Amino acid sequence: MVESWSSFDTAESNFRPLVVIELAKGTKEETIEWLTKRIVDKKTDGGAQLLIKPLVMENGVENIYLVGASHLRLLLGAETVGLVKECSDNSMRAFTYSSRKTFKHFADDNHDFLTMAECQYIIKHELENLRAKNEKMIPGYPQAKLYPGKSIVRRLLTSGILVQIFPLHDREELKKLSHSWYGRVKVGYQPLDDIRCYFGETIALYFGFLEYFTFALIPMAVIGIPYYVFAWEDYDKYVMFATFNLLWSTVILEVWKRICAILTYRWGTLLMKRQFEEPRPGFHGVLGINPVTGREEPVYSSIKRQLRIYLVSLPFVCLCLYFSLYVMMIYFDLEQWVLDYHNENESNFSSLMLYMPSIIYAVVIEIMNRIYRYAAEFLTSWENHRLESSYQNHLILKVLVFNFLNCFASLFYIAFVLFDMKLLRQSLATLLITSQILNQFAESLLPYWLQKRYNRRMKKRMCSKKTDTDLSLAEQVNMEKEMGTYLGTFDDYLELFLQFGYVSLFSCVYPLAAVFAVLNNITEIYSDALKMCRVYKRPFAEPTANIGVWQLAFETMSVISVVTNCILIGMSPQVDALFPDSKMDLVLTVALVEHLLLAIKFIMAFVIPDKPRDIQTKLAKLEFESLEALKQQVRAFQMQL
Amino acid sequence: MVESWSSFDTAESNFRPLVVIELAKGTKEETIEWLTKRIVDKKTDGGAQLLIKPLVMENGVENIYLVGASHLRLLLGAETVGLVKECSDNSMRAFTYSSRKTFKHFADDNHDFLTMAECQYIIKHELENLRAKNEKMIPGYPQAKLYPGKSIVRRLLTSGILVQIFPLHDREELKKLSHSWYGRVKVGYQPLDDIRCYFGETIALYFGFLEYFTFALIPMAVIGIPYYVFAWEDYDKYVMFATFNLLWSTVILEVWKRICAILTYRWGTLLMKRQFEEPRPGFHGVLGINPVTGREEPVYSSIKRQLRIYLVSLPFVCLCLYFSLYVMMIYFDLEQWVLDYHNENESNFSSLMLYMPSIIYAVVIEIMNRIYRYAAEFLTSWENHRLESSYQNHLILKVLVFNFLNCFASLFYIAFVLFDMKLLRQSLATLLITSQILNQFAESLLPYWLQKRYNRRMKKRMCSKKTDTDLSLAEQVNMEKEMGTYLGTFDDYLELFLQFGYVSLFSCVYPLAAVFAVLNNITEIYSDALKMCRVYKRPFAEPTANIGVWQLAFETMSVISVVTNCILIGMSPQVDALFPDSKMDLVLTVALVEHLLLAIKFIMAFVIPDKPRDIQTKLAKLEFESLEALKQQVRAFQMQL
Repeated sequence: MVESWSSFDTAESNFRPLVVIELAKGTKEETIEWLTKRIVDKKTDGGAQLLIKPLVMENGVENIYLVGASHLRLLLGAETVGLVKECSDNSMRAFTYSSRKTFKHFADDNHDFLTMAECQYIIKHELENLRAKNEKMIPGYPQAKLYPGKSIVRRLLTSGILVQIFPLHDREELKKLSHSWYGRVKVGYQPLDDIRCYFGETIALYFGFLEYFTFALIPMAVIGIPYYVFAWEDYDKYVMFATFNLLWSTVILEVWKRICAILTYRWGTLLMKRQFEEPRPGFHGVLGINPVTGREEPVYSSIKRQLRIYLVSLPFVCLCLYFSLYVMMIYFDLEQWVLDYHNENESNFSSLMLYMPSIIYAVVIEIMNRIYRYAAEFLTSWENHRLESSYQNHLILKVLVFNFLNCFASLFYIAFVLFDMKLLRQSLATLLITSQILNQFAESLLPYWLQKRYNRRMKKRMCSKKTDTDLSLAEQVNMEKEMGTYLGTFDDYLELFLQFGYVSLFSCVYPLAAVFAVLNNITEIYSDALKMCRVYKRPFAEPTANIGVWQLAFETMSVISVVTNCILIGMSPQVDALFPDSKMDLVLTVALVEHLLLAIKFIMAFVIPDKPRDIQTKLAKLEFESLEALKQQVRAFQMQL
Repeated sequence: MVESWSSFDTAESNFRPLVVIELAKGTKEETIEWLTKRIVDKKTDGGAQLLIKPLVMENGVENIYLVGASHLRLLLGAETVGLVKECSDNSMRAFTYSSRKTFKHFADDNHDFLTMAECQYIIKHELENLRAKNEKMIPGYPQAKLYPGKSIVRRLLTSGILVQIFPLHDREELKKLSHSWYGRVKVGYQPLDDIRCYFGETIALYFGFLEYFTFALIPMAVIGIPYYVFAWEDYDKYVMFATFNLLWSTVILEVWKRICAILTYRWGTLLMKRQFEEPRPGFHGVLGINPVTGREEPVYSSIKRQLRIYLVSLPFVCLCLYFSLYVMMIYFDLEQWVLDYHNENESNFSSLMLYMPSIIYAVVIEIMNRIYRYAAEFLTSWENHRLESSYQNHLILKVLVFNFLNCFASLFYIAFVLFDMKLLRQSLATLLITSQILNQFAESLLPYWLQKRYNRRMKKRMCSKKTDTDLSLAEQVNMEKEMGTYLGTFDDYLELFLQFGYVSLFSCVYPLAAVFAVLNNITEIYSDALKMCRVYKRPFAEPTANIGVWQLAFETMSVISVVTNCILIGMSPQVDALFPDSKMDLVLTVALVEHLLLAIKFIMAFVIPDKPRDIQTKLAKLEFESLEALKQQVRAFQMQL
């Protein structure tokens, strides 16, 4: 059916499938014909100028299509998306087709110049930018309205005709990657550049951050062990430990920015120009004129959105926070009840029972976090944000505030209302360890089990002794389309954020927290790697230059930790003993030290440059060159006069 | 001698002098010939393609040259410097010669399309960018070395051959401007747009800030008066006053950012691309390769500079700070001595004497500030910064830290060591009022006296009854070259910064501070306006998009003021009385309130957008258009394939 290659691409004979499009079963013939025509049509005719082929399955189902593109088309696409590649002189530059010869490893017959992930990103970008011309609706589906300029793929997705689009795995590459990543037990760094080539920058940056953060915690953990072993109740020595931690946490966050700049410069995303953001798929509104683009597109009143945020979302979040505090009070009642029970009938069972409320509470917290997450997603999507970034920011804010309170409120209550350091230490340990076990289960054991099941299914399906790598294309597609979809790095960062909270907020009462965090993160690297390689569909690569709002979240947490640690140290009996005459002097000294530490923190954040000097020089060089080029242009034009 | 107009400009007959170049007396003929040739040479030959004419003075001195340019040359220059002008559709766009017809008020014969200040800025830019080609030295001065790419004008300035370059006043315009600005006593806004047209954006923005800041202080002043009149010792009511002040100071600084965006959008500088920064004139080093530009130019090791900063400048600044504290202690000894004297022999004289130490100290502080200023300038210039911006930042940091400590240390000492609120109020009032009087004298009375002297001199010189406007060009140039040079807005901002400190740091003990500040600022506007129009040479316009590091300085001050105000309120007897049982509770409450206020402050700064919505939309629209244009270009290129 689809054999009408555009003339542009006839020269190219070998079709390499890159992206899979799954249409709903029973999609009308005319819709398919229209869609495939639009996809292969020339750019001049408003098409995407890609290649598409139906995949004939063994069971005769015909709703799956493979999309590819000619080598030339991909190179032109790389220019359109603004890909930045390394030049022969080791500098990074935005790729343009006309200057292609100046790039490292470029050759007209070298099809590995663009990584597979980059090719897939380009195809995704081209598909998403396939826009309605004068179609009023999707052919065959009169209820699926279109207007000029609307992204066809997004409309197909929202109207359910398009089930999913996903990039294909490269079994060969994946095997190599997983071997070097988690295949063998080894001490060393992750192959971040290979991860980036295969999964794209967002995911590679997450793993880079996870690794960096784990290394950064090691000094804390190493110092924490002797503190725990030799000086259990010796608070005054913790003063040094806590001060070290505070400065350390500032330094690691600042240094991360520099490392992030080094990584993303190497990967080219630091220099990538921001693309103009299109409305997110779920955005709806009445047709109007967008003041920015001047195009006709759905418009939704900003006042209505503000009303929804402030009159519905905000009260709802407050209610949830109240509910979370209410559950916390129940926990304390339970704790009291267990303590009374233990005091009345002391036994092994009753002393074991002492840990039960904390464990139950930890489980309840995890459940509440997960339920709240759905509510937050629903609410934020109901707020009808126009841009994905705005949606993400509102979602992250909602989730962060709730998770923070939910996880740490009880600890704050114990520390600053009950003044019970023993209970604090116990609660902290239980919360930290339980949440880590729950997360490891959800992220490591569950995947392992899924993996097993998947292996069994595979075996059943293929009677022959085929290994993963020599599956037929149809088998591979069929298998991958059933795999789960990776929903982004949000949950992974959130987990790290809460862990950072446990470690930094109360580091001075429980120095072992860092040790647990390090141990958890090491297994986390392996389980996350396994998850990415074996459990989920390959995600589309997303270029990114930094970890975005998470940097701010971590920095805010480290500011809060300065305050809590200073108060905790001030409350310790040893420090108390230093001021036998006047409680006042103690409090004033603590307040003074806290303000000094905060001031030092801000000055350090200000003084440490965000980018290493050589990256700064390289960026300045690029800017200088582009200014010079502009000047040359102006001059050349003026000379014509 | 200089009659070789380039062919480009022969059509243009009317020469309008814009900029004056004053060479040293006795400059060699060959140097003059070379310089003028370079200035009039075509762009293609590496010249500036400007017009230059010697000014023949009555006394026959021939070291003054007038520089102008043809209308076409100025338009092309406007494109080179990236000037942003308003289009016919009211949007702001970078001016290009090819799109000139789309701009508002553009006509080929409308020579007012560019303001005179813009023309002068363009000429300054072109002159400074006149670079050595293959000259090894300035002809006639073998000791004044040159290397390819070195700015000729900067070398001429540093070697003393060029005495000064300054733009000419436009007597007609100046008269109109000064009339509408300060010529009549009126209630209303300053003519900011006219000021910007005449003096450029940096100066207009300073006056805009001064005006805005004065208006912003009025509510504080209005509330402050009844507090002062009716409730002198009634601290607890100050709690509300101080809290209001804190939030108010955050809001005004945030709102200023928005107003600044509105102003600079209208003036076009918000959209102006940053130009590549050349080394500052005073920078020296051995010839090497600049890693950014790849050009041969002086290079100075960054390590050497760091060593100079940390091993010389930092200790010196610390020493100065120590000295300042030492002087403060002498002041307190003096204060004690006067108090003892007053107690022993009470009289009118002795009670007047009570104010003497404060007044003397205020004068000493002003003197120390001014001396330190010279030392800081010398040191910063000795640190040999490559860029003007880096030089400015280091200078401002040095001066701010010292001025802050010098002005406020005694107040902090009185408040938080001596706990003497009465002395604090008295010192604050004396310091504030004395420093205002001193500044007004230096800025208003002194200029007035200079103005008088200048008028006398004028009268003597011109026997006829000529008014200012119909002076001959030679007379005008001769007069203006003798006028003082305006050294930038640094001192003016510094004065406002210290004033903001006096008002915000201790607002809760002395509500009248805001009243004095408002009164001072109103006269300040007039005296500064007089200074700009009559006392100084016209300064070159400098495009700028914001008040730069001063925004940060003011924000830091408002954070510090939260802390001091909370402590002051906590120390008041009325608040003290609310916690009769426990001093601890008081301190803890104060600390809690302080942290809450700081948190609210940061959240407010985060939530209030820096740019008003309509400016955001306009900026987004421009960005969208440039992205679309780029896409079109890429597409057009790809279609050729």
